[in-house]
Amino acid sequence: MRMRRKANLDARLKGCQDTGRLIVLDCEDRNFVTSIEKKEYLELEGLFGNDRPIVMEIGCGKGQFACELAKRNPGINVLAVEKTSNVIVDAAEKAIAMGIENLYLLRCDAAYLSKFIPPDSVSRLYLNFSCPFPKKSYASHRLTHRSFLEIYKELLKDGAELHQKTDDRKLFEFSVEELSYSGFRLKNISLDLHADSPEDNIMTEYEKRFVDMGLPIYRLEAVYSRESSV
Amino acid sequence: MRMRRKANLDARLKGCQDTGRLIVLDCEDRNFVTSIEKKEYLELEGLFGNDRPIVMEIGCGKGQFACELAKRNPGINVLAVEKTSNVIVDAAEKAIAMGIENLYLLRCDAAYLSKFIPPDSVSRLYLNFSCPFPKKSYASHRLTHRSFLEIYKELLKDGAELHQKTDDRKLFEFSVEELSYSGFRLKNISLDLHADSPEDNIMTEYEKRFVDMGLPIYRLEAVYSRESSV
Repeated sequence: MRMRRKANLDARLKGCQDTGRLIVLDCEDRNFVTSIEKKEYLELEGLFGNDRPIVMEIGCGKGQFACELAKRNPGINVLAVEKTSNVIVDAAEKAIAMGIENLYLLRCDAAYLSKFIPPDSVSRLYLNFSCPFPKKSYASHRLTHRSFLEIYKELLKDGAELHQKTDDRKLFEFSVEELSYSGFRLKNISLDLHADSPEDNIMTEYEKRFVDMGLPIYRLEAVYSRESSV
Repeated sequence: MRMRRKANLDARLKGCQDTGRLIVLDCEDRNFVTSIEKKEYLELEGLFGNDRPIVMEIGCGKGQFACELAKRNPGINVLAVEKTSNVIVDAAEKAIAMGIENLYLLRCDAAYLSKFIPPDSVSRLYLNFSCPFPKKSYASHRLTHRSFLEIYKELLKDGAELHQKTDDRKLFEFSVEELSYSGFRLKNISLDLHADSPEDNIMTEYEKRFVDMGLPIYRLEAVYSRESSV
């Protein structure tokens, strides 16, 4: 959904950056290919101050899921990625206000992630209620398009899982197809998550609205194993 | 669904067998493993009198789908498999009454198919509204259980597709997981077939009932390629 640019956005972004909690990555280079090849890896162990597993959410929006995930799981490190400054600023301010230490916010376009995140470093990837881009001509913008999956495969550790939730039927169908095409193994599919009474589910505000309307939430897990892929 | 045994079942079965349209295969052997290893392949080219592609439906019930499929597609040969005599007799009588030549009915347990059907001979496999066996302890009876998928992989030609329709959400979720586990590539997923206005869909009576109730029909296609599987 489109939002009005926040008043004082630059000042608020700077405030978050000054705490170190928000990292703004430069994805503005016009020459994508050259830029992506020039690696500028974040030093993740130094950043978090430990070597706990890195869990990433791409498209974290206002950060509710990522903050809750980090708070509930002190044994993991969370990287919450979002490309829109206007949105990630809310997530960053939330994390700062909650005093969460095991979460960093990255303002970054997912297409550039392999420039900044070292290969073989992410233990789990979450995609929650990603923009469905319903028009076919925008399919390549969907975060489960095969071109994004190739990026995720670089970042993910062998055997790591991608977990997706969405209320959008067409996006879910597309995701199953693309993941299958790209060599991920699908498991723990649910076509009506809340009918299955999930134990550990972290419900976002967006999700709650759909559940209250009686609409199904689709969910999948997909495992990427280097060995079994050709 | 459980049905009362038809009056004159044996006589009706014999009538269908006498026309040659219904073939009753012996799956009663108590020693499954020995029995399955002793191949008794049907000579399919001789049976159909041509070498057109073989398309199989497993669990054909009363045969509405298989008959319609054969009628609409004179360029293919259809094998409709069903293990219950009480049910397949209706399918066989229907095919005989309609005078369909490119369809044979096989009374056979799917677990025995590789005893009777030569490997690498089936161009497409349909599973329509298979029994969901909702109890977890009966999961191995579901026609998309990995043990059945191994049998189908033997029968299917390289690159052949399995097409499944069901109204049962849990069976569909299970099927996606099992097919993915077994190295099939999923494509053309629909979680609400009739919302997508399918062009070529052959609607069974069973399906029509669900659609009339406004319930979704789930559908998938799964490709089996020997090369891409390990």
